[in-house]
Amino acid sequence: MIKLKSNLLSSIGRFNLDNILNNIKVYCELINGKLNDYIPEMNVPEKKIYEAMRYSLMIGGKRIRPILALAVNDMFDGKVEDVLPFACAIEMIHTYSLIHDDLPAMDNDDYRRGRLTSHKVYGEGIAVLTGDSLLNKAFEIMTASLGEEKCLARKIKAMQEIASASGPEGMIGGQVVDIKSEGKSIDQDTLTYMHAKKTGRLIVASAVTGTIIAGACDHDIAKIYNYASNLGLAFQIKDDILAEIGDQEKLGKRVGNDRDKNKSTYVTILGLDEAKRLLDLTTQRAIESVEGYGDKAEFLIELAKYLLKREK
Amino acid sequence: MIKLKSNLLSSIGRFNLDNILNNIKVYCELINGKLNDYIPEMNVPEKKIYEAMRYSLMIGGKRIRPILALAVNDMFDGKVEDVLPFACAIEMIHTYSLIHDDLPAMDNDDYRRGRLTSHKVYGEGIAVLTGDSLLNKAFEIMTASLGEEKCLARKIKAMQEIASASGPEGMIGGQVVDIKSEGKSIDQDTLTYMHAKKTGRLIVASAVTGTIIAGACDHDIAKIYNYASNLGLAFQIKDDILAEIGDQEKLGKRVGNDRDKNKSTYVTILGLDEAKRLLDLTTQRAIESVEGYGDKAEFLIELAKYLLKREK
Repeated sequence: MIKLKSNLLSSIGRFNLDNILNNIKVYCELINGKLNDYIPEMNVPEKKIYEAMRYSLMIGGKRIRPILALAVNDMFDGKVEDVLPFACAIEMIHTYSLIHDDLPAMDNDDYRRGRLTSHKVYGEGIAVLTGDSLLNKAFEIMTASLGEEKCLARKIKAMQEIASASGPEGMIGGQVVDIKSEGKSIDQDTLTYMHAKKTGRLIVASAVTGTIIAGACDHDIAKIYNYASNLGLAFQIKDDILAEIGDQEKLGKRVGNDRDKNKSTYVTILGLDEAKRLLDLTTQRAIESVEGYGDKAEFLIELAKYLLKREK
Repeated sequence: MIKLKSNLLSSIGRFNLDNILNNIKVYCELINGKLNDYIPEMNVPEKKIYEAMRYSLMIGGKRIRPILALAVNDMFDGKVEDVLPFACAIEMIHTYSLIHDDLPAMDNDDYRRGRLTSHKVYGEGIAVLTGDSLLNKAFEIMTASLGEEKCLARKIKAMQEIASASGPEGMIGGQVVDIKSEGKSIDQDTLTYMHAKKTGRLIVASAVTGTIIAGACDHDIAKIYNYASNLGLAFQIKDDILAEIGDQEKLGKRVGNDRDKNKSTYVTILGLDEAKRLLDLTTQRAIESVEGYGDKAEFLIELAKYLLKREK
């Protein structure tokens, strides 16, 4: 059994929910405004692709990745206009991966965030191309930002981090392990390997991008890396717990789906109690990684607690 | 009826087939060697994705796009090591688009270049991810090349050209029009619009990339743009003609497939004779665009003639 250094859940009441929700709202407005600008409605013969890109991108979602990029960049006194294109690109990459993941050939999900998935609305062919377009657009946006010479070396470094995180060495590699594991009983190591790549790697890249663009040093990058990799793991464990015992209405998707599909999760492998304990532990590790920054890390610490308590 | 300035087909015997085939061979060896380095075999849990990337990428194909990038770069005295990463990235983008195009939700093709398509060998889920990986890898390679500061501004400009060509404003937009047109009778303007985006745009970007990386001026870029857009159109018309009357064995795919699928092509819209005439005309226009460069343009001119005569 994993032992906690202190009981995180009992201390969690202290954090200011209004404050963190307000910060998240401000970040989301920035992100959504910019995403909206990047994918305008277009009156061209192929306008359906822009409509489909907007449909999946503007649905909402928690925007955890771009929020992380913005918040970390803030923490190290970076400028929001420098990091915003990269934050939006990351959200596009995340969204494309969900569209392709939902396809009948992959997870075959009809609903996402309470709304019909892309292929249910636009058909499979367009859904494949919509994912492709969002991935391509992410790189278009990052490449365009290199046109301005300002902090060019940092932008190139951030782009390398993102490209590596989203490719076969990162996210896609995790998806391949996921497909390979379908209907099989896998062990905790394989599950952790899979999630570290499938979801963790891009979450880490988001936070690290904020650090790089702000011009922070390698020591800071290491601390933030540690925070984000633990946060990413906690995020996945929480997802698995919610998929098992969450509120169907709040989640916008059917509870018990993973179990019905014979999918290995932290809950099916560890049991519910042990999964909750591991969630606490990883959240605590994330927090400890940045505690040394004092007040500057307040948002990151509160975010970790908020994600621990989330109901969707 | 379209009138030719001179009879191109009668003059075509003069070109030196051995010479051009030898040049193509040299370029292909460079390209294939580098592609092989970029996608190594990997012994990791997700090794199947590397295997699937190699399967589609190393099958062969004509390598027209990377050859164009290399040849144009040569023509303007660029260095091959500077353009090669971009040429390989373009070939990866082209290959990913074929994998996704072949999916059951799109063209539903079982064979490509005489071998089973990706989804027939690896399953649909892995085929989707293989396409995603190749697109991602293309941008990884280009981004990595920015790490060296040498001719950085040119590389960024080339990357912007490629990103724009492969995205929804370019290739993917053309694929959307293609899907929309399925089973419908479309007019020549729509067909030309579709192909200019679906195949033409990336062919143009390949040639333009060679010009940019070599550091040629805007006047040269305009000439090369003109050459490549005509070459791209000629290429498509020739494809349509071969799909109607080509040799099944040489082509490695079934002849008459387009007609059976009720697909609009230059042959179904214009008739075979008129399609041949348009092929001659566009080839001639491509050649005229670069004739002013004299001996320096020899390869581009011979390539246009070679593609006109190709049997596969």
